Amino acid sequence: MSPEDEEFRLDDKFHDECGLFGVWNHAEASNVAYLGLYALQHRGQESAGIAATDGHAFHVEKAMGWVADVFSRDRLKRLPGHRAIGHVRYSTAGSSNLRNAQPITANTSHGPVAIAHNGNLINAEELRRRLEADGAVFQSSSDTEVILHLLARADGGTLVDRLARALSQVKGAYTLLLLTPTSMITVRDPSGFRPMSLGKLADSWVLASETCALDLMEAQVVRDIEPGEIVVVDDSGLQSFKPFRPQEKLQCVFEYVYFSRPDSVLWGRNVHVVRKALGHQLAREHPVVADLVIPVPDSGVGAALGFAEEAGLPYDSGLVRNHYVGRTFIEPKQGIRHFGVKVKLNPNREVLAGRRVVVVDDSIVRGTTSRKIVKMVRAAGAREVHMRISSPPIQWPCYYGIDTPTRKELIGSSHEVPEIQKYLGADSLGYLSLDGMLKATGNDPAHFCHACFTGQYKVGFDDGDLAQLKLFDS
Amino acid sequence: MSPEDEEFRLDDKFHDECGLFGVWNHAEASNVAYLGLYALQHRGQESAGIAATDGHAFHVEKAMGWVADVFSRDRLKRLPGHRAIGHVRYSTAGSSNLRNAQPITANTSHGPVAIAHNGNLINAEELRRRLEADGAVFQSSSDTEVILHLLARADGGTLVDRLARALSQVKGAYTLLLLTPTSMITVRDPSGFRPMSLGKLADSWVLASETCALDLMEAQVVRDIEPGEIVVVDDSGLQSFKPFRPQEKLQCVFEYVYFSRPDSVLWGRNVHVVRKALGHQLAREHPVVADLVIPVPDSGVGAALGFAEEAGLPYDSGLVRNHYVGRTFIEPKQGIRHFGVKVKLNPNREVLAGRRVVVVDDSIVRGTTSRKIVKMVRAAGAREVHMRISSPPIQWPCYYGIDTPTRKELIGSSHEVPEIQKYLGADSLGYLSLDGMLKATGNDPAHFCHACFTGQYKVGFDDGDLAQLKLFDS
Amino acid sequence: MSPEDEEFRLDDKFHDECGLFGVWNHAEASNVAYLGLYALQHRGQESAGIAATDGHAFHVEKAMGWVADVFSRDRLKRLPGHRAIGHVRYSTAGSSNLRNAQPITANTSHGPVAIAHNGNLINAEELRRRLEADGAVFQSSSDTEVILHLLARADGGTLVDRLARALSQVKGAYTLLLLTPTSMITVRDPSGFRPMSLGKLADSWVLASETCALDLMEAQVVRDIEPGEIVVVDDSGLQSFKPFRPQEKLQCVFEYVYFSRPDSVLWGRNVHVVRKALGHQLAREHPVVADLVIPVPDSGVGAALGFAEEAGLPYDSGLVRNHYVGRTFIEPKQGIRHFGVKVKLNPNREVLAGRRVVVVDDSIVRGTTSRKIVKMVRAAGAREVHMRISSPPIQWPCYYGIDTPTRKELIGSSHEVPEIQKYLGADSLGYLSLDGMLKATGNDPAHFCHACFTGQYKVGFDDGDLAQLKLFDS
Amino acid sequence: MSPEDEEFRLDDKFHDECGLFGVWNHAEASNVAYLGLYALQHRGQESAGIAATDGHAFHVEKAMGWVADVFSRDRLKRLPGHRAIGHVRYSTAGSSNLRNAQPITANTSHGPVAIAHNGNLINAEELRRRLEADGAVFQSSSDTEVILHLLARADGGTLVDRLARALSQVKGAYTLLLLTPTSMITVRDPSGFRPMSLGKLADSWVLASETCALDLMEAQVVRDIEPGEIVVVDDSGLQSFKPFRPQEKLQCVFEYVYFSRPDSVLWGRNVHVVRKALGHQLAREHPVVADLVIPVPDSGVGAALGFAEEAGLPYDSGLVRNHYVGRTFIEPKQGIRHFGVKVKLNPNREVLAGRRVVVVDDSIVRGTTSRKIVKMVRAAGAREVHMRISSPPIQWPCYYGIDTPTRKELIGSSHEVPEIQKYLGADSLGYLSLDGMLKATGNDPAHFCHACFTGQYKVGFDDGDLAQLKLFDS
Repeated sequence: MSPEDEEFRLDDKFHDECGLFGVWNHAEASNVAYLGLYALQHRGQESAGIAATDGHAFHVEKAMGWVADVFSRDRLKRLPGHRAIGHVRYSTAGSSNLRNAQPITANTSHGPVAIAHNGNLINAEELRRRLEADGAVFQSSSDTEVILHLLARADGGTLVDRLARALSQVKGAYTLLLLTPTSMITVRDPSGFRPMSLGKLADSWVLASETCALDLMEAQVVRDIEPGEIVVVDDSGLQSFKPFRPQEKLQCVFEYVYFSRPDSVLWGRNVHVVRKALGHQLAREHPVVADLVIPVPDSGVGAALGFAEEAGLPYDSGLVRNHYVGRTFIEPKQGIRHFGVKVKLNPNREVLAGRRVVVVDDSIVRGTTSRKIVKMVRAAGAREVHMRISSPPIQWPCYYGIDTPTRKELIGSSHEVPEIQKYLGADSLGYLSLDGMLKATGNDPAHFCHACFTGQYKVGFDDGDLAQLKLFDS
Repeated sequence: MSPEDEEFRLDDKFHDECGLFGVWNHAEASNVAYLGLYALQHRGQESAGIAATDGHAFHVEKAMGWVADVFSRDRLKRLPGHRAIGHVRYSTAGSSNLRNAQPITANTSHGPVAIAHNGNLINAEELRRRLEADGAVFQSSSDTEVILHLLARADGGTLVDRLARALSQVKGAYTLLLLTPTSMITVRDPSGFRPMSLGKLADSWVLASETCALDLMEAQVVRDIEPGEIVVVDDSGLQSFKPFRPQEKLQCVFEYVYFSRPDSVLWGRNVHVVRKALGHQLAREHPVVADLVIPVPDSGVGAALGFAEEAGLPYDSGLVRNHYVGRTFIEPKQGIRHFGVKVKLNPNREVLAGRRVVVVDDSIVRGTTSRKIVKMVRAAGAREVHMRISSPPIQWPCYYGIDTPTRKELIGSSHEVPEIQKYLGADSLGYLSLDGMLKATGNDPAHFCHACFTGQYKVGFDDGDLAQLKLFDS
Repeated sequence: MSPEDEEFRLDDKFHDECGLFGVWNHAEASNVAYLGLYALQHRGQESAGIAATDGHAFHVEKAMGWVADVFSRDRLKRLPGHRAIGHVRYSTAGSSNLRNAQPITANTSHGPVAIAHNGNLINAEELRRRLEADGAVFQSSSDTEVILHLLARADGGTLVDRLARALSQVKGAYTLLLLTPTSMITVRDPSGFRPMSLGKLADSWVLASETCALDLMEAQVVRDIEPGEIVVVDDSGLQSFKPFRPQEKLQCVFEYVYFSRPDSVLWGRNVHVVRKALGHQLAREHPVVADLVIPVPDSGVGAALGFAEEAGLPYDSGLVRNHYVGRTFIEPKQGIRHFGVKVKLNPNREVLAGRRVVVVDDSIVRGTTSRKIVKMVRAAGAREVHMRISSPPIQWPCYYGIDTPTRKELIGSSHEVPEIQKYLGADSLGYLSLDGMLKATGNDPAHFCHACFTGQYKVGFDDGDLAQLKLFDS
Repeated sequence: MSPEDEEFRLDDKFHDECGLFGVWNHAEASNVAYLGLYALQHRGQESAGIAATDGHAFHVEKAMGWVADVFSRDRLKRLPGHRAIGHVRYSTAGSSNLRNAQPITANTSHGPVAIAHNGNLINAEELRRRLEADGAVFQSSSDTEVILHLLARADGGTLVDRLARALSQVKGAYTLLLLTPTSMITVRDPSGFRPMSLGKLADSWVLASETCALDLMEAQVVRDIEPGEIVVVDDSGLQSFKPFRPQEKLQCVFEYVYFSRPDSVLWGRNVHVVRKALGHQLAREHPVVADLVIPVPDSGVGAALGFAEEAGLPYDSGLVRNHYVGRTFIEPKQGIRHFGVKVKLNPNREVLAGRRVVVVDDSIVRGTTSRKIVKMVRAAGAREVHMRISSPPIQWPCYYGIDTPTRKELIGSSHEVPEIQKYLGADSLGYLSLDGMLKATGNDPAHFCHACFTGQYKVGFDDGDLAQLKLFDS
């Protein structure tokens, strides 16, 4: 991407890197996969791909862009067969090209396989160097290809045996979806960082990163895939394997805070309901005398509703979001101030003027957007602007599959809350506490990864990895 | 559009047909026009166009698609000059092609002109036949071309004289934006059906269908253009003309109900605030014992907030909208039920289950979508579903610039409210009364067109037009 | 076209501006029109268009590019009906955009009409001004639109009457093809500048600029349309009209020299045979002692064969042409010499080295390409390079439908033959004489326009036109 | 490719599968590679690709289509660096997709490498199975990927050592071009099936499949790369290695007969001059009393000129070729006879009528096109049609890098010459003898592969390979 075409980065959020969907035994499998990806589009807007098989030939179609743009009727026709897996992907600019789009399809001594991955491996570089030293040829920079090579080299036994042996060498976060001519397999890593749900649609089995994809096609939600579980779907039915040594759960709490769609049910709880609970707790931790609670749409809506409810304050819509925003935005060269978030959000003066306003958002990454929002709300006449955040200060990058800036870009890593408040220009600023957040999820607080808030990276990172970590961070 | 590629019509709403934006005296006029159209995208998503001039040459670029997709940096570079006007358009499938995209540029004996139009002429066919009989050559099916021909044939005097003479022959709704090498002109028809606002951006004058476009670029909102007013902007400044016989105002009340963006200020009132007032009145007219108020997002949000506030009921988000919906959606041929609104909306079971739910929407057109929503909410476990609509039953098509179905497709035209309730499957159904709606706008109730609710077409429709009306309706 | 994207102009030739094709009464009319345009592609490579009708609705599809690229199977499906006309177009860079692509479709008081034009009107600007003064609205810069307006304004009588009346006001070169719901009409102007042939394909009538298009579909060539003739094809058959005052024939001799495909039969003679006759005459007028005759491929092949035959010299292929040349060519910025004609032609050293070579080409326009060819042939080892041109020096621009440079760019206009020879670096240079050329055509020498050689513009150009001529020339 | 979009196969020729070009040490390396591929386009029109490096990062761009369409200025800008290699490819429909386009870029333990290949491996499947059994992951169906894996697994020593060791396992035809951050390498297999030439362009080294690519950029032709030679270009200059056991030369005689451009110098002889010599010999072997010699353009031109010269008969252009033919051609469904070669060639009646015509072509594959040509020439009035072919009957498929039909499709494999003559409908048919052809090349007759004429596959094909051969053939 040349500087002059540089994408205008319209938000200041963490970004999930992938959504996965698979279907087994459906007459229009690739079309069902398309539907599933459609509902998972919020998990990745950069590329979309589907691999399908009729039990013999494999076909794959992938391209940069939204699901609705990538797949035409003609393209879906080029994906015949009763089995299909699909993938949507977000990625950082550097590796943003078709070569890294998924599913990856390849041939090994065990036959053809398609693989799609949500997560990030900690020791990918080390494994890659080891595999290359042993003659492996890598055709992308994706860590998913590392898994493919490990699998190809795993000897003996069943596919599950080989997969377990391959994954035993891997550290990090991975939810995988694989397709072979005779089976569809999913795996969640033993820590269970990323979600995966199983559904049933008449005679078909479906797998999806979030239940909202199952809802779209009116599939019945059967259950979550468990951490460390390998599920194999084939024509004889469904089998579950647990070949890994049990480990403590490290489910990504940010899935509740921001990534997942509010209508999904994740780890036993509805995401919107959890977000409202985060708002309740936030109101209890950081009460404020005010006239009005407004969300930063759309991600702050759940917490704002909860905050307003708990605080007994009116909830209103004080910022209007333009949903026709494309990937790029062309700013004038001169004469008009820098646009930033204005392209996406516009304050509603009549709602805000003269009021003491509580603005609720889910998180603050760099702080640049929040600062503009505060300024915007104040410029629209708000008498006071109180910022409330439904998660703790983000202080650390994520190495488990989320696209995050480096430490020094994280405002929470280098500044104390009062400094951040000052930078934002808010009259007050309250972050939800770690304990408050974890408790509000309704899950066991011990079952979450919260490394981005605490730096407690519980997976990976022995000496070699630390060097790598530094590398990443620079 | 062939049947198999048939666009999946994802909503059941009236559709505004156009948004207009113009800028005079800006070093990057076409880029500013692009920004303005960006903010007006909700008024038309089918085609976008900009015409620009440096005072001599005219350039125009237009294409099917969203503003963000149509205009690349390269394309904007092909639109040099300090003056530009732009247009976004929605239209019915039949005439949906590039030939009807605007602005239309043409050469007449008075020099080059670009014209963009929001509205619809009642007597376009009659005028067209008359002009053709007199040798005129029409290259599109757009009624805007009729205005162009009338203007080209108007003799003598200033451009304003000629424009007034041309428009004196025209009946119907029109807000126009014209660009010549030496001036930018806007007109609102004497009834003032469609809006237009004037703004100032440093040394530039800007004109926009809605104030949200002025907000985006931080232009100062100066005032509304008045019904029957012609405003000419040129290098000597701004001049206002009122050449038409004054008529009663017939401002489109549906701009408040649904079309305009909630953050726009229209005819003196903020749209979101009006929508909340509609909700207040709706709650007063149709109270109900319930646990929860939810909107049909996004259009029902304002009225739902107002309803909940007035009724003292909790407001929540019970339907989640997928914002990554494209223009087309490919359904499977078999095996899965018809999708309809499910592609866009998904109910949140945990919010709805066991509750008595009030669902608030702005209007019901055919009823098909509302029926699916009721079913969906009930399937998600709602104990009771009470539908509340923040406008009266739609009984008549619009002939003033809104894309509406024929009478027989309007459920409000052929059925009484109890029948509609039964069709929707709702436990109760309440429409806002006409008087209630008009009063809640905060404007003089006499100043609105409400023909779609009442059939009172106050402009046009003498004998000849009635024949035409029938033609339209069949 | 910005300078950096500037098309690399790969040849130094006159360019024909259009090819026309029409078919009446064929079940796959638009597909037949596609075939016809395919065979006429050499007459215009910039845009292609087809208009078709089923007797009621009109459909038109046009786009920039080659016929094979513009028309997909899907696009042809959007052109139903038993009647179709098509057009290929070359044009100068300035007006090179889709707005000027043809056929133009419009609606007039006499109903819909599609029009396609090969030629150029001398008094287009004057007529345009007159029509605009009378209220006409022009939407392109094409002179074809002038004809459309004249036709729309012609009153009374049959379509032929109106067409004759419209065309009586026009001066210049025009072969037209029109399509209405009930007829297909062709006209050649009274001077007959541009060709048009009639063919029969089973029960269908076909019309084509050149017979090679009839050959492709194995249609029977019936006859040429005559100068000043209007032919109407409808369901009752074929009618011929001659409403214009007879005038002397002014057939474009350059069609023989360069434009037409060698396999076409034009004005009674096969083009390739005429080109060989030009070569014979050229050898008689400018004999030379040499070892070898080579053509500049492909346009010089016919004359070179004739020259070699008459001179009793061996003919060989000394320059190889790359047929994969696209419209654009990206030169390196530095380090390699300017490419020019090298991209298209490469000399064959072993054929040329040590030989005295006669290089035969059809014409010299600016001289830049010929100069490079002489240099290239010499660099490949030719001992002598004798340039022979099968037409006289071009001294004047064409105003009858050919894209030509201005006078001052024409090397033949400002320089004598010895100076040109010196500029080219050739050992000798011989142009065919005017009389020799005309005689060799086998037609009556009085029946040709040769204004580009002689400046004898026999049509148009009274005082007003002269002013215009100057304008064109500057 | 679905049946209804099936490409209309417009010729009946063998197809070369690739062209290679590389440049080392040029400020605009990727632009120079683009130029080189431009001149080699006749060797492959399906996909084009360039990989470039600045000594560290690798960039690659490849796409389906012609060089001129694939590479825009912007795309070339995405290929920075002083070193580049490029590839054009033709392939059979089955594997015709982007995944098989070249150069292939990958990472191995020895660092990144880009590889481009002209040829075909006999034992690719066997090697592939062996590599997969050892854990290799294949991401395409290309045999080039086999070489990449062998290279990645070759241990120890220099890159040349590893390359030699890798290639020692390979049987078949390969000319390779590799790029690493620090070197550009080319290899011709020990038999030297496919050509490769070395050139010098100021301070840059260039490598090209044919010398016509060197001519275009006015590079000096240095020499051919020799069979079995590995040439390494790096910043210290050029080094040659001959690690393979010397073998007899098996240069593809078809390069002279048809593939190479006539202006290339191949294995010491100019291709056009060789083709004329083939024509001379053909005239001696198969004299005929006739009026005229015509070529099947463009491939038959050289031989036809030679035949006419030797026979003392006039040469003329009796078939006109349409050079605007695209990849696809849309035939009408009915009402017009099947088009076939008519789309490309049209006879010139006035040249042919009443004459005894010798038609010279380079080869006959299936015979379908030749049959149509004979019919076409006769329908244009030829009194006699004598077919002369400048190579022997093709009886065997090629396994060394040429796309050929299966044996049973080859008319020369199943029919004797008199039968073929009858099938073609020719008055006589003469094929050049094997000895005549080999002698006419001016090279040692023992140095050629002529397996397609004789079935003498001198490389590969022990027992295992024979099984594979059958597989290929079915």
